[in-house]
Amino acid sequence: MRARDLAEPYPTIALDDQALDAARLLAERRLPGVLVVDGDGLPKAVLPASQLVRLLVPGYVLEDPSLAAVIDEAHADRMCAALEGLRVRECLPKDVPLPVLADADDTTVEVAALMASSRTPLVAVLERPRDRRTAGTPRLLGAITAANLLQHLLEAAR
Amino acid sequence: MRARDLAEPYPTIALDDQALDAARLLAERRLPGVLVVDGDGLPKAVLPASQLVRLLVPGYVLEDPSLAAVIDEAHADRMCAALEGLRVRECLPKDVPLPVLADADDTTVEVAALMASSRTPLVAVLERPRDRRTAGTPRLLGAITAANLLQHLLEAAR
Repeated sequence: MRARDLAEPYPTIALDDQALDAARLLAERRLPGVLVVDGDGLPKAVLPASQLVRLLVPGYVLEDPSLAAVIDEAHADRMCAALEGLRVRECLPKDVPLPVLADADDTTVEVAALMASSRTPLVAVLERPRDRRTAGTPRLLGAITAANLLQHLLEAAR
Repeated sequence: MRARDLAEPYPTIALDDQALDAARLLAERRLPGVLVVDGDGLPKAVLPASQLVRLLVPGYVLEDPSLAAVIDEAHADRMCAALEGLRVRECLPKDVPLPVLADADDTTVEVAALMASSRTPLVAVLERPRDRRTAGTPRLLGAITAANLLQHLLEAAR
């Protein structure tokens, strides 16, 4: 089995989309993170849900977490306002890790090795044009999560 | 709103459970990780799905990922055998991070600050005995994921 067969559709958000839309997507789909794609639909980053939570927390609370207790509920309910007007590209941490990319032709073991060495639970799968002399950019086929890969390996072992 | 109201049931596995059962749980529930609990049901670690994948990959492939391509499909299908007989406690990396714990009485902002500062997508919520002079251990109420917290904050802002 190859990465192309293991890849499943995975939610993406564009660099220029609204951060609030990214938050809604993460919330609705209950995802730990979303793939961020550029104008060509190619993965450029993974935006973790915890990073958006981080942006909601006032800076003085991040510096001194004991101050969190003094924020009242009415203010807490407005925390999401911190994302208003922000685009996804403005939410990415400076040290944002590049998404881990597998080739559509990679084997199960190659994908597992990639996941293991990068300690990432998510690998994006790209179909690259077969003939590199011809024009054509790679295409995002989907993603393989660690849970997805475990499922495949458990089924194969039966 | 308090952590006790935000906490949702989250799958757990015991330190002495079989690693294969942890893999099945992660695969079936499509989870990035599972809470590992001790004999008292208290969270001791988070076992990421990617850590189990790591244990499936032969050591020589981890050292030289180019060797992954030489493993044939029949062998790949037996990769899960690497987990046979292993207990969950034997699968935890030496540097396994302790799970991030919130108190049932923590406010939304306190939970958000905890999640933001630890950059974790999962916070376990403990109910501690109110009277510390009486005997009684804390109890795991559930967990709050970053996606879950975003959903609450988005709904509250409406």
